[in-house]
Amino acid sequence: MSETKMERGRAMLKDVCGFDIPVGMSRFSDMTIEHLFGEVWSDEALSVRDRRLIVLGVLGALGDAENLEVHMTQALGRGDLTAAELDEVVIQITHYAGWPRGTKALTACHKAVAAEQPND
Amino acid sequence: MSETKMERGRAMLKDVCGFDIPVGMSRFSDMTIEHLFGEVWSDEALSVRDRRLIVLGVLGALGDAENLEVHMTQALGRGDLTAAELDEVVIQITHYAGWPRGTKALTACHKAVAAEQPND
Amino acid sequence: MSETKMERGRAMLKDVCGFDIPVGMSRFSDMTIEHLFGEVWSDEALSVRDRRLIVLGVLGALGDAENLEVHMTQALGRGDLTAAELDEVVIQITHYAGWPRGTKALTACHKAVAAEQPND
Amino acid sequence: MSETKMERGRAMLKDVCGFDIPVGMSRFSDMTIEHLFGEVWSDEALSVRDRRLIVLGVLGALGDAENLEVHMTQALGRGDLTAAELDEVVIQITHYAGWPRGTKALTACHKAVAAEQPND
Amino acid sequence: MSETKMERGRAMLKDVCGFDIPVGMSRFSDMTIEHLFGEVWSDEALSVRDRRLIVLGVLGALGDAENLEVHMTQALGRGDLTAAELDEVVIQITHYAGWPRGTKALTACHKAVAAEQPND
Amino acid sequence: MSETKMERGRAMLKDVCGFDIPVGMSRFSDMTIEHLFGEVWSDEALSVRDRRLIVLGVLGALGDAENLEVHMTQALGRGDLTAAELDEVVIQITHYAGWPRGTKALTACHKAVAAEQPND
Repeated sequence: MSETKMERGRAMLKDVCGFDIPVGMSRFSDMTIEHLFGEVWSDEALSVRDRRLIVLGVLGALGDAENLEVHMTQALGRGDLTAAELDEVVIQITHYAGWPRGTKALTACHKAVAAEQPND
Repeated sequence: MSETKMERGRAMLKDVCGFDIPVGMSRFSDMTIEHLFGEVWSDEALSVRDRRLIVLGVLGALGDAENLEVHMTQALGRGDLTAAELDEVVIQITHYAGWPRGTKALTACHKAVAAEQPND
Repeated sequence: MSETKMERGRAMLKDVCGFDIPVGMSRFSDMTIEHLFGEVWSDEALSVRDRRLIVLGVLGALGDAENLEVHMTQALGRGDLTAAELDEVVIQITHYAGWPRGTKALTACHKAVAAEQPND
Repeated sequence: MSETKMERGRAMLKDVCGFDIPVGMSRFSDMTIEHLFGEVWSDEALSVRDRRLIVLGVLGALGDAENLEVHMTQALGRGDLTAAELDEVVIQITHYAGWPRGTKALTACHKAVAAEQPND
Repeated sequence: MSETKMERGRAMLKDVCGFDIPVGMSRFSDMTIEHLFGEVWSDEALSVRDRRLIVLGVLGALGDAENLEVHMTQALGRGDLTAAELDEVVIQITHYAGWPRGTKALTACHKAVAAEQPND
Repeated sequence: MSETKMERGRAMLKDVCGFDIPVGMSRFSDMTIEHLFGEVWSDEALSVRDRRLIVLGVLGALGDAENLEVHMTQALGRGDLTAAELDEVVIQITHYAGWPRGTKALTACHKAVAAEQPND
């Protein structure tokens, strides 16, 4: 049954973040697959879109430009949020975490939107 | 027209946070009413529920127990989130902002749920 | 000469924070007196008022309500900042550290102003 | 009159940060121009130099190396702070936000000073 | 086997934090018991004392007075750290997270030491 | 005697961080040598390994990738921590400061381990 959680976790990680991690690489990566994605993200009490909005709020407050870009890119790719909604996510973060954190989120948003439209 | 923004802001503040602030108290409170609520929260690009999830993520990362309680209480009262969804918001915050921030969010969640059920 | 730094530190601590700490209580308190106040705050490259503004910015970002109150009260008492200037410090913090941190600074500001006007 | 606020905001942004943003690019950039610079920074209750010191404190606590460099460069260029004063701003941040944040501020300070002296 | 992890987690939680949580209270508390204590803290790659020092560093940086007190009290009670070592933990936090975070850690330390010596 | 503190500080800095700073470069660097290393790190109430664990906790919470790498590299080089212990430090940080901060610590850990094994 634990293996099932691993499988569910890998599928969820791929869906949420857009990349795959093999099982058995390290204790850290196995916890990420099995616990964070197989247990936390997989629970249906909140949708992936809802969890994404919470995570964007946390990442905005932490000023984590790299992870903001990953989550914003995948939010667009998966159809969780439109580019117009992402713009407004940035504005909401700006007012609750301050302008410097907001400009980091803005840069990540621009990169995510550009990545979604490679031919523009 | 700016007065309209003030009126819209006061109504939005009451809806989002559950309390009212009179106009003209101070430059800070007028900015809060007119700009934060009349301009930011009022925009329809994101729903109040969506903005709430982002704000809960920010507040979770900041470890702001007091504001978490305000927003969680009003999320329940307004019907944005159920108690079961709030429990899961706490779990999501815990994994992205760490266990110490998570336990602060948990306490706020318990207070918000208790406030919603005064006769239990 | 190290004793002179201790004496200078104690006087500076009293001036900046409004309270006195005896020498020899602990390694921590001696470092606070000798190094933080006798060495850092005592240097004339920046005025106490300038240092206070920086510290208010740091404390605002940290959301440290207690220390904000200490520094705002003493800023008023020492004449570094007027109540009107403090109101604007709160607004500046709000926009760079976000609204939740701003409301913490606002509460500290109200307490500091009230403490300065005991008979009102 | 709102247009006046936009114009005042653009001039203030140029003065404070050293670059210009056209009106109408996005809701975020218009809020930055009109509200943050046309409303907050433009108020005369605090000087630009005073606001800068607060912002440097916030940015120091956030560890925002990029924005520290922008504000430090412009503080030198505008004459708000001398290089010797900036050195002391770094020391003040170091003691209130900790050594790791202080070293980030130090690097930003070195870059700002170097940018001011292109021929050295 | 999962039950074993739960049992191991409860014993570890009691040992590390000094209190017990029953199984089955909530998804959050079960994750805390099974994953955080049964999986993370239980691993022998680092001793409880080593993990405690890391956690004290994290809590110091977060300025989490309440959890600092819990961990400092239990560090004394369990014999992980002496009162003299705790004093030095506070000094180390002060220099890496700044004086305001340091004074929060100092207060927690005083409470923890006082709780350990009820008759003094 | 103060010169002794400087000398002790330089030796300690070299031992803890792996690089040397000449005396007299700036007020900031002299404070770092004399106070942070000659006074704080030199005290025998805690070992260098213990202080390192606290600092890794603080840096993990701050998300300071650059300083994490410095301290992790030197922790390996000095023999304070093995690669296996560092892996577990990352897991502990992850659960107390959240997954985004954990992944920053993980990247720093990989770089530190790679730097220690140049021929692998």
